[in-house]
Amino acid sequence: MVTDAFFRPVSGFDLPRFAGVPSFMRLPHVPFDHPRFPEVQIGLIGAPWDGGTTNRPGPRHGPRQLRDLSTMIRAANGATWVAPFDLARCADLGDVAPNPADLMDSMARMEAFYDRVVAAGIRPLTAGGDHLCSLPILRSVAKARPVGLIQFDSHTDLNDIYFGTSRYNHGTPFRRAVEEGLVDPKRYCLIGIRGTAYGRDDWDFAAANGIRIIPIAEFHARGAEDVMAEAREIAGAGPTYVTYDIDFVDPTFAPGTGTPEVGGPNSWQALQVARGLRGLDVVGADLVEVSPPFDASGGTAWLGVNLMFEMLCVMAERVAVR
Amino acid sequence: MVTDAFFRPVSGFDLPRFAGVPSFMRLPHVPFDHPRFPEVQIGLIGAPWDGGTTNRPGPRHGPRQLRDLSTMIRAANGATWVAPFDLARCADLGDVAPNPADLMDSMARMEAFYDRVVAAGIRPLTAGGDHLCSLPILRSVAKARPVGLIQFDSHTDLNDIYFGTSRYNHGTPFRRAVEEGLVDPKRYCLIGIRGTAYGRDDWDFAAANGIRIIPIAEFHARGAEDVMAEAREIAGAGPTYVTYDIDFVDPTFAPGTGTPEVGGPNSWQALQVARGLRGLDVVGADLVEVSPPFDASGGTAWLGVNLMFEMLCVMAERVAVR
Amino acid sequence: MVTDAFFRPVSGFDLPRFAGVPSFMRLPHVPFDHPRFPEVQIGLIGAPWDGGTTNRPGPRHGPRQLRDLSTMIRAANGATWVAPFDLARCADLGDVAPNPADLMDSMARMEAFYDRVVAAGIRPLTAGGDHLCSLPILRSVAKARPVGLIQFDSHTDLNDIYFGTSRYNHGTPFRRAVEEGLVDPKRYCLIGIRGTAYGRDDWDFAAANGIRIIPIAEFHARGAEDVMAEAREIAGAGPTYVTYDIDFVDPTFAPGTGTPEVGGPNSWQALQVARGLRGLDVVGADLVEVSPPFDASGGTAWLGVNLMFEMLCVMAERVAVR
Amino acid sequence: MVTDAFFRPVSGFDLPRFAGVPSFMRLPHVPFDHPRFPEVQIGLIGAPWDGGTTNRPGPRHGPRQLRDLSTMIRAANGATWVAPFDLARCADLGDVAPNPADLMDSMARMEAFYDRVVAAGIRPLTAGGDHLCSLPILRSVAKARPVGLIQFDSHTDLNDIYFGTSRYNHGTPFRRAVEEGLVDPKRYCLIGIRGTAYGRDDWDFAAANGIRIIPIAEFHARGAEDVMAEAREIAGAGPTYVTYDIDFVDPTFAPGTGTPEVGGPNSWQALQVARGLRGLDVVGADLVEVSPPFDASGGTAWLGVNLMFEMLCVMAERVAVR
Amino acid sequence: MVTDAFFRPVSGFDLPRFAGVPSFMRLPHVPFDHPRFPEVQIGLIGAPWDGGTTNRPGPRHGPRQLRDLSTMIRAANGATWVAPFDLARCADLGDVAPNPADLMDSMARMEAFYDRVVAAGIRPLTAGGDHLCSLPILRSVAKARPVGLIQFDSHTDLNDIYFGTSRYNHGTPFRRAVEEGLVDPKRYCLIGIRGTAYGRDDWDFAAANGIRIIPIAEFHARGAEDVMAEAREIAGAGPTYVTYDIDFVDPTFAPGTGTPEVGGPNSWQALQVARGLRGLDVVGADLVEVSPPFDASGGTAWLGVNLMFEMLCVMAERVAVR
Amino acid sequence: MVTDAFFRPVSGFDLPRFAGVPSFMRLPHVPFDHPRFPEVQIGLIGAPWDGGTTNRPGPRHGPRQLRDLSTMIRAANGATWVAPFDLARCADLGDVAPNPADLMDSMARMEAFYDRVVAAGIRPLTAGGDHLCSLPILRSVAKARPVGLIQFDSHTDLNDIYFGTSRYNHGTPFRRAVEEGLVDPKRYCLIGIRGTAYGRDDWDFAAANGIRIIPIAEFHARGAEDVMAEAREIAGAGPTYVTYDIDFVDPTFAPGTGTPEVGGPNSWQALQVARGLRGLDVVGADLVEVSPPFDASGGTAWLGVNLMFEMLCVMAERVAVR
Repeated sequence: MVTDAFFRPVSGFDLPRFAGVPSFMRLPHVPFDHPRFPEVQIGLIGAPWDGGTTNRPGPRHGPRQLRDLSTMIRAANGATWVAPFDLARCADLGDVAPNPADLMDSMARMEAFYDRVVAAGIRPLTAGGDHLCSLPILRSVAKARPVGLIQFDSHTDLNDIYFGTSRYNHGTPFRRAVEEGLVDPKRYCLIGIRGTAYGRDDWDFAAANGIRIIPIAEFHARGAEDVMAEAREIAGAGPTYVTYDIDFVDPTFAPGTGTPEVGGPNSWQALQVARGLRGLDVVGADLVEVSPPFDASGGTAWLGVNLMFEMLCVMAERVAVR
Repeated sequence: MVTDAFFRPVSGFDLPRFAGVPSFMRLPHVPFDHPRFPEVQIGLIGAPWDGGTTNRPGPRHGPRQLRDLSTMIRAANGATWVAPFDLARCADLGDVAPNPADLMDSMARMEAFYDRVVAAGIRPLTAGGDHLCSLPILRSVAKARPVGLIQFDSHTDLNDIYFGTSRYNHGTPFRRAVEEGLVDPKRYCLIGIRGTAYGRDDWDFAAANGIRIIPIAEFHARGAEDVMAEAREIAGAGPTYVTYDIDFVDPTFAPGTGTPEVGGPNSWQALQVARGLRGLDVVGADLVEVSPPFDASGGTAWLGVNLMFEMLCVMAERVAVR
Repeated sequence: MVTDAFFRPVSGFDLPRFAGVPSFMRLPHVPFDHPRFPEVQIGLIGAPWDGGTTNRPGPRHGPRQLRDLSTMIRAANGATWVAPFDLARCADLGDVAPNPADLMDSMARMEAFYDRVVAAGIRPLTAGGDHLCSLPILRSVAKARPVGLIQFDSHTDLNDIYFGTSRYNHGTPFRRAVEEGLVDPKRYCLIGIRGTAYGRDDWDFAAANGIRIIPIAEFHARGAEDVMAEAREIAGAGPTYVTYDIDFVDPTFAPGTGTPEVGGPNSWQALQVARGLRGLDVVGADLVEVSPPFDASGGTAWLGVNLMFEMLCVMAERVAVR
Repeated sequence: MVTDAFFRPVSGFDLPRFAGVPSFMRLPHVPFDHPRFPEVQIGLIGAPWDGGTTNRPGPRHGPRQLRDLSTMIRAANGATWVAPFDLARCADLGDVAPNPADLMDSMARMEAFYDRVVAAGIRPLTAGGDHLCSLPILRSVAKARPVGLIQFDSHTDLNDIYFGTSRYNHGTPFRRAVEEGLVDPKRYCLIGIRGTAYGRDDWDFAAANGIRIIPIAEFHARGAEDVMAEAREIAGAGPTYVTYDIDFVDPTFAPGTGTPEVGGPNSWQALQVARGLRGLDVVGADLVEVSPPFDASGGTAWLGVNLMFEMLCVMAERVAVR
Repeated sequence: MVTDAFFRPVSGFDLPRFAGVPSFMRLPHVPFDHPRFPEVQIGLIGAPWDGGTTNRPGPRHGPRQLRDLSTMIRAANGATWVAPFDLARCADLGDVAPNPADLMDSMARMEAFYDRVVAAGIRPLTAGGDHLCSLPILRSVAKARPVGLIQFDSHTDLNDIYFGTSRYNHGTPFRRAVEEGLVDPKRYCLIGIRGTAYGRDDWDFAAANGIRIIPIAEFHARGAEDVMAEAREIAGAGPTYVTYDIDFVDPTFAPGTGTPEVGGPNSWQALQVARGLRGLDVVGADLVEVSPPFDASGGTAWLGVNLMFEMLCVMAERVAVR
Repeated sequence: MVTDAFFRPVSGFDLPRFAGVPSFMRLPHVPFDHPRFPEVQIGLIGAPWDGGTTNRPGPRHGPRQLRDLSTMIRAANGATWVAPFDLARCADLGDVAPNPADLMDSMARMEAFYDRVVAAGIRPLTAGGDHLCSLPILRSVAKARPVGLIQFDSHTDLNDIYFGTSRYNHGTPFRRAVEEGLVDPKRYCLIGIRGTAYGRDDWDFAAANGIRIIPIAEFHARGAEDVMAEAREIAGAGPTYVTYDIDFVDPTFAPGTGTPEVGGPNSWQALQVARGLRGLDVVGADLVEVSPPFDASGGTAWLGVNLMFEMLCVMAERVAVR
């Protein structure tokens, strides 16, 4: 039980939710040089970078808006009654500093940032940023050994090369991650794939490597709980990374994203799959592709923040039991 | 059968829906001093007041926008074929006059207004306004005896005190109503509760008083019809008030509200629960927390107006059979 | 198998989706005087006309926005793996030229345009425009013999006269089409009807002519697949026209339309019913009532374009097997 | 001095501006059959019709939004200290009932409506509607004799025929009005013309008839006061109609309109020209082309309402001195 | 010259403007209990409270959005080349904690907060909040002696009582401040007054007390520089408070506010008047009535932040010369 | 006089402005492989690339929206009566194909594209894209000899390095262009500079190279015509490139851009400066930084298209007289 007032978020009964300098979930802001940094167990991090975007940009603005909306989060999960801030010392570690006009430098900066986080024994929960952000994070989190991967997404992001030269973009991160040995393809499950397709090359790559894809029709037919039971089976007991692309959710529920695909899960199902992670050893997670310029009202970010909170609950329970 | 042309709304076959001074559902505007006021059976009323809002304000603008969108309503219910304007003499009674910068005076003004309505034997159907509006209405409607209460909501609104001093705000009205003896807690059912929680105090209050809470997970598991069968059972044959907070509905379907909670019912379910009130002795009803500044397009108000129409159909059938 | 590079759409792997002069699905623009016009098998056509609109106008802007969003469509259907551009020679035939301030002249212009299309043996897939557009199209497509009709809609559009004089508007096209012998009422099925009603006159017309109406409650109870099995049965093996009013879909998923009705199908169901057309001899189809001024973000058009793509897949399979 | 409480608008000190059924400027709603109709001196009228629109539609929604925003108007003009409701008995006469899908019938209905207004000795102040609305109004107002005309506009609206057949649309009303002898071209002044041009035909028509055009460059060079001095000179002492197309104003200040032209007057200049009408015998006036779908926030309507108020002040001073 | 790195804002050359936890102008966040609090010379403070709003609410959200946009501010004033962070130790002191449903308690909390700021010798620069916020601030800042006041506004805010009981709202603060002896009416100048008027009571109060009002027509006629020369003359050499209501600016330039009045200054003039404060002994300043719900894009807040920066430059020059 | 119908844009009298596949100004679409490409004299080109953006991205979507809005342009300039399509053979050459995730490859692709344009003797008029686009264009246009440069902008874009490594971004193009000898600094004039500053390094670079900067205060003091007389003097008789950053204009008039600076020119002044280019030998021009995600309504693009038309008029007059 975390009793140190320093690590308790501000309550909406004391300060209205719209007031105050916004940090993630009203947690303390603890940058690397803060004296209490070594005590943090779960670090909420912003990755304001969308240099890998091939279509509509904007996720660089995600962390700012997600932080803003996150001040509406209260202390306990009304569905599972998990109270994450009771279970683990959580903090807002601030943002990675990207280099918007230099893709390779940005990836190097991100990897270096997460190396420090991982070295401190902190489990990172990241607010992206586009999906390419997951690659440098995985390079840190999976430095020691490959991890399992659960990916909620409408696209496989297993493509190879775009526009003749581009090997690193938000359509390719997990192909690179498998190639680099960061992800164990046998413990890798993709959920929610849909929309029109360029071709079958990404699906062939998945099949050749033993990656399990659960397309949306199967998801709608089986339901979220059954699908998640299989996903937990695939990921198994080992360390697992979770990547949640907001475009997994139907674009009506999450319009603020760059490459929406219609016919996806609703907001209840979006929550259900996150709750379905319970019990996994989630060593890191991210919520990516929230693009505020395409949803000025913040509804997408509000859903995204709730998904981050659900993943945080799963991570906090795990940290607490260790 | 209402045959008096005065009480018939204007048809969209005669005057386009976008034309004309907007009154609720194109009914006659009948203020207290109108000669036909004594004939009214069901009064549609605007309560443009949101003084009890602790988070994002705006419902004070609800009646204006709800009235505007309501001119798109036609004469008959396409699902149940109930034609409320055939069954009861309905009218737009205008708006309560609030005092935006004086909370206690506003509550007193509201109670006085509804006292006149109730005294005239008119059943009020109110367009809010924030949820604190329900308290002064209940003080009038339940003046003679406690009423049953069915509350559609994502929050319990059973909290006690905010910010140290605030006992009357939109998070506390039904705790006050129970304390004041306006609502019979044994005949009180809350449906749709979800989202993160401050703690368990409001749930404890409900449990201690015998109030039935149906949280959203149970709602999704059982379905709207089964849940409403139980709700009708709880409310029973006695006089019952219905309060419909638009944030009961998932915020994707109803973004125009101040404290949205993701993962709620969709618009079809939103209609289903209102239709599920059929048979109850609904002595008054409200639709609250529609906040136009957060939904300029009016989609939330359009859904809200449809919900008002469904409640009106239930009320009109009851009035007709008396 | 279409191998001619001329008829292949541009790939998003070669040119970013946001680049280039926008044609429907990045197909070649082939107006009547283009040398390759005679080779076209399926023609995508814009009908930028909303002269029949009795409520909120705007569908005249539909083709422009639908064309814009359509550049996000890729080559293959990720659900059925149909690749329409492999199966049929498809092209963007451009827009019909309406006369915005002359209703009868606009209808005559439309009929003349489609006569040329039909005469060339091209199956038209139209992006409206309001629902009155379907009438002049049917006058061309059904010139030789009545056709079956499957209509996805929240309104029957079987009304008779508005405002005393108006026989041709977007609430009457299919009554006129039945009266003119363009549609075989025994092979005519309406799906999704809901909302408040003016009265029962349109339902009586349907009943008197043997038209099958599947209201939304039945749709929700039976599910999309079962309903579509019946619809295919009704339409049978003969030539069939499909008209898809975007207001069939719940307005939360498709806000950009003039006369929204709450409580409709979600985006997944919207796709399912289009896929359920598979096997029918679809001689023409349209997607109407997309109104960009009421959905600046383009989400409605993006769903609409996906529905056009699903209908195109069904049409292309049919063309390929001939 | 008007002392009759019936004709006094509700004050914002008594009822908040967002409350109440909205009538123009919170004046009493006095339809033709109202007992006090004969006492009205200046009638505010909505003309929700845009059937003459050749480009982006929407002004049919103008009266609803203008009425809504008009409840923010207070009792006195803060610049001139004219208090129009003290000077003349003003009322909201409601809306003309158009026929959205029948252009000629709509024009006939409008003319008949205004004939009743003019016959009652009421000076009409109209909220459009598109610019074609001015033609049937002029047919009533100028039935007895031609009137002078002051037109604030970015377009001449003196074109002849569009799309081969269209003689009556929002680009032609004043050519028709001159041809029909409703406007004395020697007493006709156009102010603010700008933007790209189809050609010179409309300017040639003006020149041939002695109509004075003050293009925007001249307006910017001379200033509003000097230009209005000339305009008053042209219109002279006789009865004069004023037509104010909101697209006279720069589209940044008035984005909610269908055919914006950049580089126009700002909001201060927009007010100045209306105040510059002072002293003219304004027998009727209109404010047209406010298109709410292109300005959901209502800023355009808010400016429009202020312009109506300025014209009302001029008209009321004239009525008072008679 | 401030050389301590702690008090230097983060540069956009080092960290992109969209990255990082947002504090005002990227200054350090220094709450009361921070060890460096005693060193602060100018404190930027958020006052997220709009309990005094009689019309459209929303300014409670102002500080959040102003802080967000303020990260786009760079180190030096490009017009005057003043570099405020070189001249004074500036910090973000965080937000006052209001009580949204208790007006009197909120005013007491604000006064207590500012008492601590003033006691520490810090000059406050506040981001509101509605205009009632200025009253509790003045109670602190003018505790020792009356101050001069320069008010940029479209309304006098010198009214007396609203709705029968409301003496404290955003239309009355400066009448109260004069009555309470906080402001020396002879050193008080209002600039920009316009719009329709309830009556003349507020002007009479000004005249009776020797308050100088410069209405908008005079402002437009004389120009910003001349007007500001007079304003400086009126305020004189003594301690002066500056209150900048964003509705001083034309609503096209600043739509995000609750009671807009058309025909105001443009953005260049808005800057000019702030620069015209140079040389005054500004002991405190505020920028109020920015209402994000009415300007989701943030343009109003962006202008507001620039105005805060201009006032900061004036204050920093004064602090530096002391 | 261009009489060839092929090069005449479609008239809005024949086809409504909202109809048809949108090309720039409704000109023929003439890609490199089109048989009439060699006849083109002025080529309108889209550069959908914003890889150099350090702050808010979006200009990659500019060409699509500018093309869309450009169909509202008519044949003649209503201010100068220049009819550019009579004077020069103009065509839409389509879009450059960028590589969104590879900055250096994108610059190479752009240079190669413009080399083909310049080699064909075509003067390019480009719709960006961000301001880095101007660098590869200048590398083509100024390949043979340095050009004069007139830059309308709120920023100098003369910075050196961002984020430690970034030499090529939208804040540096003209420093690079001067360093590369593409621009003659003595014939280079910047107009409109304003906003907060990082420091003085860019101004020092300008001073050291003899570049003339006209800051916004000077612009407002002297007026557009006087400033442009000086600019024409500086550029002289030699070949001159014009680059128009939409953020030159006040962000209220042009909100759709990534780095707005308040206090700029209004729309009339924006047009005036473009008209002030008349007489110069404009060998190429661009309009950059229009960012549709930040202005969904298209008002910014509409102004941008008008500015492109004004520059086209200047270019066409020059081509005609050769």
